[in-house]
Amino acid sequence: MAKTIFSKIIAGEIPCHKVYEDDKVFAFLDIDPLSKGHILVIPKEPAETIDQLSDDSAAALGRVLPRLSRAVLKATSATAFNILQNNGSAAHQVVMHVHFHIIPKFAESADGSGLGIGWPAGTLENEAGERLAADIAAALDAG
Amino acid sequence: MAKTIFSKIIAGEIPCHKVYEDDKVFAFLDIDPLSKGHILVIPKEPAETIDQLSDDSAAALGRVLPRLSRAVLKATSATAFNILQNNGSAAHQVVMHVHFHIIPKFAESADGSGLGIGWPAGTLENEAGERLAADIAAALDAG
Repeated sequence: MAKTIFSKIIAGEIPCHKVYEDDKVFAFLDIDPLSKGHILVIPKEPAETIDQLSDDSAAALGRVLPRLSRAVLKATSATAFNILQNNGSAAHQVVMHVHFHIIPKFAESADGSGLGIGWPAGTLENEAGERLAADIAAALDAG
Repeated sequence: MAKTIFSKIIAGEIPCHKVYEDDKVFAFLDIDPLSKGHILVIPKEPAETIDQLSDDSAAALGRVLPRLSRAVLKATSATAFNILQNNGSAAHQVVMHVHFHIIPKFAESADGSGLGIGWPAGTLENEAGERLAADIAAALDAG
């Protein structure tokens, strides 16, 4: 995997505003924040997308999300927030190293800051749903 | 906490298209999918938002995201996807039980399916960044 800007941040070769680090996880302020308190939470393990990440690194990332979320809420006085993790350039991923965004949403502000969400919901037809759930479960069983 | 539709799904009181279950986690098809293969991954522990969830449940959720993502990609032939987790009605949360969306994004389709993302990025000023990172780190230390 090519070295990304995030690998260099973890290695200390590029400066950042760090907020947290343990043996598997690193967290810092996004330099182009969608709102005040927007942070990135990344694994030290280099993986381009989360489907390529080890279970242990993914568990370590999951484990710190509640704690980091509470700290961001406390420091910014936000009460709502989104956690977003994009995989693939078609899905808005820019840096090819797994990252979770924690993005505060300030309900009281009308400035449009924070994550914008488009939600083109469809409907799940029952038979198609049964087939699709079976396909996904089978893919899980196959490893 | 009030019983939500997701608690009832976990308890088997409301049907769903289940794709995965372990002692801490439950996953099923979203009934109003943004794209084919849109699933929800939820903790069995009842918590309204992720900042209120236990570290162990959050780690268990994180641990299965790579595996579930691979299964969704395999079953749908998608190559890109978003993982989204909303907290608070201001941040687009509707069911008040923690849930991660895994939402395939089909680059080749021009039908607009999948998550729509609005990205009103600002710039992080260096001094303000230093103060904010220190505030978040201090909030972490304070528990």
